[in-house]
Formats: sequence, structure tokens, C-alpha cells
Amino acid sequence: MGKITAVSPLAPAAFPGLPVIGGVTFAAAQAGVKYAGRTDVMLALLAPGTKMAGVFTRSKTRSAPVLDCQAKIGGDSDAGAAILVNSGNSNAFTGRNGVDSVARITAAVAAATGLPQARVFTSSTGVIGEPLPHDRIIAAIATLRDTQTADGIAGAARAIMTTDTFPKGATATVMIGGKPVQIAGIAKGSGMIAPDMATMLVYIFTDAVIARDALQAMLSDLTDVTFNCITVDSDTSTSDTLLLAATGASGVRVDDDPAFREALHGVMLDLAQQVVRDGEGASKFITVQVTGAASDADAKVHAMAIANSPLIKTAIAGEDPNWGRVVMAIGKSGAAADRDRLSIWFGDILVADQGWRNPAYREQDGADYMKGEYLTIRADLGLGAGAATVWTCDLTHGYIAINADYRS
Amino acid sequence: MGKITAVSPLAPAAFPGLPVIGGVTFAAAQAGVKYAGRTDVMLALLAPGTKMAGVFTRSKTRSAPVLDCQAKIGGDSDAGAAILVNSGNSNAFTGRNGVDSVARITAAVAAATGLPQARVFTSSTGVIGEPLPHDRIIAAIATLRDTQTADGIAGAARAIMTTDTFPKGATATVMIGGKPVQIAGIAKGSGMIAPDMATMLVYIFTDAVIARDALQAMLSDLTDVTFNCITVDSDTSTSDTLLLAATGASGVRVDDDPAFREALHGVMLDLAQQVVRDGEGASKFITVQVTGAASDADAKVHAMAIANSPLIKTAIAGEDPNWGRVVMAIGKSGAAADRDRLSIWFGDILVADQGWRNPAYREQDGADYMKGEYLTIRADLGLGAGAATVWTCDLTHGYIAINADYRS
Repeated sequence: MGKITAVSPLAPAAFPGLPVIGGVTFAAAQAGVKYAGRTDVMLALLAPGTKMAGVFTRSKTRSAPVLDCQAKIGGDSDAGAAILVNSGNSNAFTGRNGVDSVARITAAVAAATGLPQARVFTSSTGVIGEPLPHDRIIAAIATLRDTQTADGIAGAARAIMTTDTFPKGATATVMIGGKPVQIAGIAKGSGMIAPDMATMLVYIFTDAVIARDALQAMLSDLTDVTFNCITVDSDTSTSDTLLLAATGASGVRVDDDPAFREALHGVMLDLAQQVVRDGEGASKFITVQVTGAASDADAKVHAMAIANSPLIKTAIAGEDPNWGRVVMAIGKSGAAADRDRLSIWFGDILVADQGWRNPAYREQDGADYMKGEYLTIRADLGLGAGAATVWTCDLTHGYIAINADYRS
Repeated sequence: MGKITAVSPLAPAAFPGLPVIGGVTFAAAQAGVKYAGRTDVMLALLAPGTKMAGVFTRSKTRSAPVLDCQAKIGGDSDAGAAILVNSGNSNAFTGRNGVDSVARITAAVAAATGLPQARVFTSSTGVIGEPLPHDRIIAAIATLRDTQTADGIAGAARAIMTTDTFPKGATATVMIGGKPVQIAGIAKGSGMIAPDMATMLVYIFTDAVIARDALQAMLSDLTDVTFNCITVDSDTSTSDTLLLAATGASGVRVDDDPAFREALHGVMLDLAQQVVRDGEGASKFITVQVTGAASDADAKVHAMAIANSPLIKTAIAGEDPNWGRVVMAIGKSGAAADRDRLSIWFGDILVADQGWRNPAYREQDGADYMKGEYLTIRADLGLGAGAATVWTCDLTHGYIAINADYRS
């Protein structure tokens, strides 16, 4: 059963060593938006020539900064760019005041840096519906500009945390034509995690040379198999934002390079899985694999029904190999299923075989398997070649405790 | 915050006094299907001329007894009928053995009562995927037949309980043409509650005279605004069954009578709300009203998104007036919404007014309201005339505790 711990039991041993990415610098500061005694605002500055791509929540109540980013992201430019992020307040459902806050902050960053305002991207994360104290953020901008460092990305990762119990970073180096291209990314996210198109706050940087359209297409494709395949609690944020910046500092063109794509996929998947590993109250990391579905889309519907089922997530918290609840989730998902062709595995243990309990299955084997921290549930529909994999965590007392008094 | 209590704090003060319905008798017995020291099987016998209607889960992994009931329910007959229900095992995902168990039980009831096997309806509720020990049930049939009483409905309500903390009953009397028509119903249900077409196990009896098609049409219509408008945990059972039996013993024809329809609606709504009041771990009963949506269907999508959101349900458990999470749920639901036309009330307190926090709203008012046991969340979309009301409960530590070790 889960409990509130200082750091998630599923956290990586340490924040990874992230490489310096040519063309980008970082700073973090204490603006006092909501939290006291910790950094809560970060500014990343990107060199001229940087190409920006992004994906964003499809929530119909998305926040003012998300709407502003969406309006700007398609505009190509050889000017530099800035990303300013605050935690403690999401500036969501704040009406005209929220739009005004974004305009004031982006204007102040533009004035302080000499960048066009159209190249200043912002994100806000935290409580919904409270006016953003933008003056406090604006007051920190000069400090953020004057303390930029090339290796400040770890501090930036910490400044964007809310209920996160650890900062999240991932990196990859890929050799293309004998030259290294670097990728480094950071993310925050722990609850309200059921991304729809994008997710949470994620910022990824690379020194690759790539056209903006190619960068955007690659990011959108890879989001579908990484951030759009995780869920903590089925709730979708109003602030989900993923920005990818390619500075070009490596001098290496990667436009359609499969090795670069694979490396970027790896960084995105690593960050997405770290969000699950920091799922509010999580004590188990669960991989849900669905095969044999009528289509890939059907497979994902089944996989998400399993991953979002409170009854499955609580059973796993209790280390109960309750495979009947997997049958229930597949039955309710709405996607095609035939009870008598359905098989289910816990890890390598076949528990249900084509419509009934595997006669050789021993409950003790399932119970022993459930004691692990990293679990795989696999369901085969026996209908076709559709497949999907999603990742989630269990539902514990910790989730209740965190969310019953988050605002208080 | 919730805790496991012997009886839900939201339970009615007492089981209602249910009237004798002419033409139906009941008995309950201890068959030892799973539980020890309590009744776990009930048999209702219905007089010749009884009309039967039913609605059932649309789960694609629905149980063998559900499939059997669905095959039989459309067949009109002037023979009597029987309803046999066991708790402790749902006979779901039990393959050919499950079908065989249903055939053996219905044949045994037919032999013991002289009814056609096509008029013997069964339900099973409890763990999924375990073979049903049908021999234990069959061994109890003679006792069940020989101990039938006209006033045994309360005992029947207790025999069908699983994780329920109280038996559920409701009744209505309606005068038609100066003569009384009686309705009495019982239900079980506490978790895995997100009915899709029907719900849980519900049995309603009336002495009205009515054609089978009219009875079925009325039942289906009313299910959409009662049992299909409740949710505890968004998980849909493999066993949901609602049977309605009209014995005709009153001699009063009710085919299209609006007073009868209204009375039946009241009984169904009462039973549906009792299921929510016994939601696993529930400490608050929540009415979610959505108005001003583009359509009634959109209103229900929004209302269910609010009612199923773990973040809203945990906030309510913690008595936190976190209306930003209501904004989030409407944003993610997929139905039409315009952030700047959205207003939200807690009870009569306007917390958000057309896209932003109501300037007159005081957090303390919201916090005081949340201390109540019966809460109403209302959202107006400002788009059209679509409306829907659904009912749910909060998500507490009690739900986690109950479901992390239900099978153990």
C-alpha cells in the first residue's frame, strides 16, 4: 500500500548528468509566486537560428499561456527565443486577466532580452483559477537574464516542480556522419496526468540542425507513442505543454535521420516514464501491453481502460493478482473484444487462456509476481494484429492524501 | 476523509417497509457459495401471467447469467417465472463451464417448481473468473422453494449483498382509477459502479397489469435517467442486471399511465441513489448538475467527466472547494465547452462566473459548504439548453482499503 514519501520509491537513483547543449542557457530564481524558500521560475534563452516545435493539451479549458504558445509556435524565425516557466499557479481559467498576465510577462522578457515578443514562450503550472501574480515574475526577469549558465538545466528542472517528488531529466547522444548530436530534456508532472495530444510541462533541447516543419512532424509523431501513452489518474491538465528546441549548434543536419528520431524517442519515453514513476502516491510502475486487437487504436482503448481502472490500480496497490478486473476493463472499454478469445498474462505468467482461467495457473504465482515494483500486464484479444503499450502506476492511500488537501 | 465503517455514513436510517406485492414470494438461504454464516442465495417466484422486462450491462465480457437472461427476456409468456440470485461469485469469464453452470441451475429450478426453463432467470455477483460451485446452489433449491413467503423481500435484499454495507429497498404506491398499484424493488451495488445500459443487480416488482413491450420500453427509458446516471468509480461490471416483474395481481392496467411511470421512476431513482450512498468508502453524496450545454448528450458527458474525476472526488473527500478541478474535467470531457462562458456553483454559491472566479466568491464560503454530507456541483456551459444530472460519491482512503484486498 502506498504512503506519502519524501521521494517516490520509483524515482531514479539520481538526476542524470545532462550535457551542455550549444545554443541554450538557463537560470532559475525565487519569484514567490506561491511557494516560499524554493525556486519557482526558470528562463531558458535560445540562440538565433533555433527552430521551435511544440504540442499542447487539447483541453477546451486550456490555459492562457498554452493559447499564447499555440498562436506563436508555427511562426518560423531566425531570431533567438526564450522559454519562461513558473510553478505554483497555472494561470488557467483566469479570463481576460490571464491573457493580460501572459502579454505583460512576454513583453517584459522581450524588453529585457531584445527578442521579438513573438519568440517568447511561457508556461505556468499549479493551482487553477487564481490570478497569476505576474508582477512577481516580471520582477525576477533581470536576475534570470543576468545569471544564465550553459549548465543550468538541472536547476530549471527543479524550478518547474509542483507535487513532483523528484526533478526529471533525460539525455541522448547520437552520432550522425561521425559527429555527435546532443539531446537533453526536462519534465514536471505527477498528478492530473492523462495527456491528450501533449502532456504536463516538458522542455527538450538539441543542438541538431533541422527544418521547423520536420521538427514539428517528428515531435507530434513521437508524442503519440510516449507522452500520449501514459496515465496516472485519467485527469487531463489545462496546461500540458511540450516544447522542443533545436539550436543547430552542432552543425549536423538531422532532418529525416532515423538515428536522431530514435534518440529523441528514447529521451521522450524516458521523461514520460519518469512522470509515471512520480505519479502521486505511486508504489508500483505498471506496463500495460495489449496485442491481438482488431486495430492499434482498439488496442490503445483497451490498454487505457486497464491503466485507468481504479479497481485494477487499487488491486495492484494491494499486491492482489486480481485478473478478473482486467477482464472487466476490457469488457467496458468500448473497443472490440471476444470474451472467449481473450488471454491475460501477469509478467510471463499466463493467468487466463482464451476465455477462462488457465488450469495450470496457481494463485500463489500471481501473488508472488505482484510483490515486484515493476509489473507488466499483457492482454491478447485474439482478434487481429493491433497492439499498444501504455504505462501507469497504482492507486494508493498516498494519492488520496496528496489530493484531498493539495490546495489547503 | 473516508474510513471503513460497518455501515456507510450515508445509509438510510432503516430498510424501508416494503409492501407485499401480489403474485410474488421470496426466500433466502445459506448455500455457502463463498461467504460463511450469512445468506447468499435468494429465489423469487412469480405467478402465472407475470410480465418480465430487463436491461443488462453492455460489457463485452458480460457474464454467463447475463447472456442467459438476455436470451430469455424478450420471450413473452403467461407461465409464471423465477429469479434466482447468488452472491459471492459472479460466474463471469468462466467460459463453457459458466454456461454449463447456468444451464444446470435453471434446469434444477424448473424441475423443482414446474416452470419452463425459459422462464427461470438467474444472476450471480462476486469475484470474476472463478468457477461457480453450482452444486451448492442446486442443493439449496428445495429449501428455497419450500420456505417462500410473501413478505420475504427484505431477506432477499440481504442475500444479494457483496461489499454493500446496507441492504437497499424502495417502494411506491400509485392510485390509478381509484385503485392502488404497488411497486417494490431491491438492489445491491457498491463498487465497480458505472452502469452502461443497466446496473448492478436490481429487482423490481409490481402488481400492475401491463403489456410486456410497454413494460420493457418504460424500463429502458427510465434506466437512462436513473441507473445510467450514477457512478462510483467509473468501472463497469460484467454482471449488471435489472429485472422488472409485473404480476398483474392488482388488476389495474397501467400501460401508458404517467402516474405509474412517475412512481416507477421514483423507485428506480431511490435504489440508484442508495447504491451511490453505499459507494465503497463514500463519505459524501454528490449531485452533479450540468445546464446550458449544447445538447443533453453533451451535458451528460460533462457531468460524468466531473463525477468520475479522481481529482474532484479526492478534493471533496478532503472538503476542499477546489473548483479549478471542475474546470479541468469540463475541459477534458470532449464535449463542447467555451471557457469564457462557463460558470460553476457549489450549492447556491457562485464560484466561477463566465470564465473567471466570481469576484464576490469567498473561499471560506466554499470551505464551509464542503463540510456537508450532501453536496451539489452545478456547471452552466452558457451554450444551449442541454441539461443532465448525475450522482456520485467521493473517493476516500476507504475505497483504497476495500479494493486493495477485496479478494484476499
